[in-house]
Amino acid sequence: MHEPGSQLIGNTSSAEGQQTFQAFNPQRQEWIPQPFREATAGEIDRAVTLAAAAFNTYKKVAAPQRAAFLRAIADGIVALGDELINTASAESGLPLARLQGERDRTTNQLRLFADLITEGSWVNARIDSGTPDVRQLQLPLGVAGVFGASNFPLAFSVAGGDTAAALAAGCTVVCKAHPAHPHTSHLVAAVIGKAAQSTGMPEGVFSLLHGATVATGQQLAVHPLLSAIAFTGSFRGGKALYETATRRAVPIPVFAEMGSVNPVFFLPGILKEKGEALAGQFLQSLTMGVGQFCTNPGLFITQTGSEVFMETLLKNIAASPAGCMLTPGILDAYNKGLQQLQQAGAQVLGKAQEAAQQAAPALLQVSAQQALDDPALCHEVFGPSSLHIKANSTEELYRLAAALEGQLTATIHGTEDDLRQHAGLVDILREKAGRIVINGFPTGVAVNHAMVHGGPWPATTPAAGTSVGTAAIYRFCRPVCYQDFPAYLLPPELHNDNPLDIWRLVNGRFSKDMLS
Amino acid sequence: MHEPGSQLIGNTSSAEGQQTFQAFNPQRQEWIPQPFREATAGEIDRAVTLAAAAFNTYKKVAAPQRAAFLRAIADGIVALGDELINTASAESGLPLARLQGERDRTTNQLRLFADLITEGSWVNARIDSGTPDVRQLQLPLGVAGVFGASNFPLAFSVAGGDTAAALAAGCTVVCKAHPAHPHTSHLVAAVIGKAAQSTGMPEGVFSLLHGATVATGQQLAVHPLLSAIAFTGSFRGGKALYETATRRAVPIPVFAEMGSVNPVFFLPGILKEKGEALAGQFLQSLTMGVGQFCTNPGLFITQTGSEVFMETLLKNIAASPAGCMLTPGILDAYNKGLQQLQQAGAQVLGKAQEAAQQAAPALLQVSAQQALDDPALCHEVFGPSSLHIKANSTEELYRLAAALEGQLTATIHGTEDDLRQHAGLVDILREKAGRIVINGFPTGVAVNHAMVHGGPWPATTPAAGTSVGTAAIYRFCRPVCYQDFPAYLLPPELHNDNPLDIWRLVNGRFSKDMLS
Repeated sequence: MHEPGSQLIGNTSSAEGQQTFQAFNPQRQEWIPQPFREATAGEIDRAVTLAAAAFNTYKKVAAPQRAAFLRAIADGIVALGDELINTASAESGLPLARLQGERDRTTNQLRLFADLITEGSWVNARIDSGTPDVRQLQLPLGVAGVFGASNFPLAFSVAGGDTAAALAAGCTVVCKAHPAHPHTSHLVAAVIGKAAQSTGMPEGVFSLLHGATVATGQQLAVHPLLSAIAFTGSFRGGKALYETATRRAVPIPVFAEMGSVNPVFFLPGILKEKGEALAGQFLQSLTMGVGQFCTNPGLFITQTGSEVFMETLLKNIAASPAGCMLTPGILDAYNKGLQQLQQAGAQVLGKAQEAAQQAAPALLQVSAQQALDDPALCHEVFGPSSLHIKANSTEELYRLAAALEGQLTATIHGTEDDLRQHAGLVDILREKAGRIVINGFPTGVAVNHAMVHGGPWPATTPAAGTSVGTAAIYRFCRPVCYQDFPAYLLPPELHNDNPLDIWRLVNGRFSKDMLS
Repeated sequence: MHEPGSQLIGNTSSAEGQQTFQAFNPQRQEWIPQPFREATAGEIDRAVTLAAAAFNTYKKVAAPQRAAFLRAIADGIVALGDELINTASAESGLPLARLQGERDRTTNQLRLFADLITEGSWVNARIDSGTPDVRQLQLPLGVAGVFGASNFPLAFSVAGGDTAAALAAGCTVVCKAHPAHPHTSHLVAAVIGKAAQSTGMPEGVFSLLHGATVATGQQLAVHPLLSAIAFTGSFRGGKALYETATRRAVPIPVFAEMGSVNPVFFLPGILKEKGEALAGQFLQSLTMGVGQFCTNPGLFITQTGSEVFMETLLKNIAASPAGCMLTPGILDAYNKGLQQLQQAGAQVLGKAQEAAQQAAPALLQVSAQQALDDPALCHEVFGPSSLHIKANSTEELYRLAAALEGQLTATIHGTEDDLRQHAGLVDILREKAGRIVINGFPTGVAVNHAMVHGGPWPATTPAAGTSVGTAAIYRFCRPVCYQDFPAYLLPPELHNDNPLDIWRLVNGRFSKDMLS
């Protein structure tokens, strides 16, 4: 007998719901016994209402204390040790080593945001000390609804980048766990709850809700006290949330990262120089993690000189292992996506050996004309497949680039000669993607200050931003300005004597100076 | 005989439309003879298509050249001299002195943005020089659709803040002129066209479209090559554009400034100290420009000690002159708004003497309970009226503040004792408004670096930003990052040697240093 898993609303476990769901172990192909309760409408309301009350306290917690909270979460995640890794692996089918890496990324992200807010300049303080005296800084939006992603059960989930950025900004968080990994989510949420208590944060600064139905997420999205939504997942899921949020009586911003085909352009010179090596690297990027990255290269475009490259690719893909995907639903969608591509006229160039309940890496191909005629051919198929297009000229290569939808990333491989001869390609791709990579591969997203993980629709909803890196914090803020305030009512970031020693734009000039 | 006014599409005048409209002189109460043609669907398409083509060139124009373009526009506006002021006055009923001030603001804004992009640090360059090497900056979105506002025929219209910010960012602009001032719009558009030619900008960097119907604006908003919309006007108009833009196949951001009631809180101590003086200042802020400012104080809240203040107000408002509004439609909406307030239970405390075709300043009142029960009482009535609410306790004052919708501004008048005793009020209001003013009045928006003219819905659509001040430029940008780029493909802002001498966030540290 297993007592069904419950919601964590503030410091309280809540078990109102009668509807339950189970996680699935995709490696063992079996349901994990313990069920989880679907959150009820009442529980969703309680979580958001508590988060809104907590916000009134949390927004005034000084940055060093918020940072201590984030660091305590990181420490708690580390302290979970193998239990967390094993649980996440059972629920996702992801290998232990990959999850250990993802855990490191998760804790590093939390610490990076802790460092960012401890340093403090991120608030973009601006002071114009004329008449009137006007002082601006970034303030948190309120309660953020964070939707966990299936493909990063740690780094884009309960204590992932969105939660870290929102909590760092001063928002409180109600997280909707991804139903594929409720046990993992529960473990991490319990850590956050303990960290909140040990560092003196208000109850409700974080709550976790479970749910396997669309209705649960939608109920969260329409709650009047919610101020923003962060989501990583499918185009369909992200678009549904976007539509809901923009049609509310009071619309709220949705920061949905909805994936991308991440086109890779291989220019002629470099293919001639190192076609074989590039084929190996490309296939590694394509099949890594069974192709389940938002930045997986699902489209690649060559022009001339691709013979050795393509031969090597086809030889190697046949020998690639099939792999276990995150959920049966994702595997099913992958196989259906490949079928649809073929029905739309794509030709299968090569495929790994099939294996039961596993995804076989695949290479498909369409002509440039087909791709230009039918943009749906270039839509994402989530998984280890990539579509090849051969351009018949540089002009056609540019036309293919210009016809692309918005992307998280776009990549160009070329020698210096290639790149100089195709400088127009960068010009086109900078309108298409949030990140442009030269002579690398899009998988592997560095978490730092300069990273952009975002891009034009349909890569993300139309709110300029990034969901990876320190700039992700700005999604959860808005600027507020204080006019002619006496010092005792101003936040310290805007005091004349700059007590936090932060960089500020003072009368148009960056400095750490005091105001005289 | 008057040849109807035409669209300005790039360098060409276009006169396809057969449907025409006329502007109205509200002072003289007569139609201005020359009609203007409503833009056709074909003209709208040509303007946006040309702007999209121009963007491919304009986005690569170096900042000093873009700055020269902005300055040439400012010079051209000055050179229009009295013709511009007289034309704008005839179409808006605004006094010459007010329009001279607005012209100065308009040209100052253009020059401020020119200075901003010449200095260059605004691009928020971020460099992480590890492995991978990742470098980020803000890039322009594409073609911006700018909708001119009725109440600022210069500063929020054809060459107003939105156009200045968009052109500064590197976007091209298709402007939909407000139909209340087409002649003024035409004069300014011609200046922009000449400035574009004299400074070597690509044709189509700016186009002007006329239209008095909703359809024209909607056709612009759905054009597939449009990337963003900026709007200043009514809640109804802004919301319609927001809905259209978010329901496109590819949604685009809408930065709509939709107005606000701009609540003013008068605390007990200061009312006792200087109730009479405050009454005079408040009435001046309320009636200035016949109350036709987005930041007009349409709501004021007192607690105790308001007797002298209210008496003075009532005495003075009776003696206030009625004034000419921008259009007959706006006057009509003002009078209907006052009627609706009364039907909803508001009591008229005092009103200026009525005059034919003019708006009489008015003060109305509801009880705190009425306001809490019926939030519609606190909706904007555009014009020189303000609604008074008396709170029966500090707790009720806080409840009234917490019940407010999103605002552009919120203002508190208080002595130091008042303010310290009501510190919770700032806490509430910072969630409600983009700008909080202490002991001042919300009308009069400084154009500088720290200003925020924006706020939570329904003050603006939910995209954090400001439509006044240099931070307005970020509405027209998104971050793009370059990974492992060779120097010859990087924009100069991201070169190791920092040739533009801008502030950058290099490995997390602000500096102007070169990278070694």
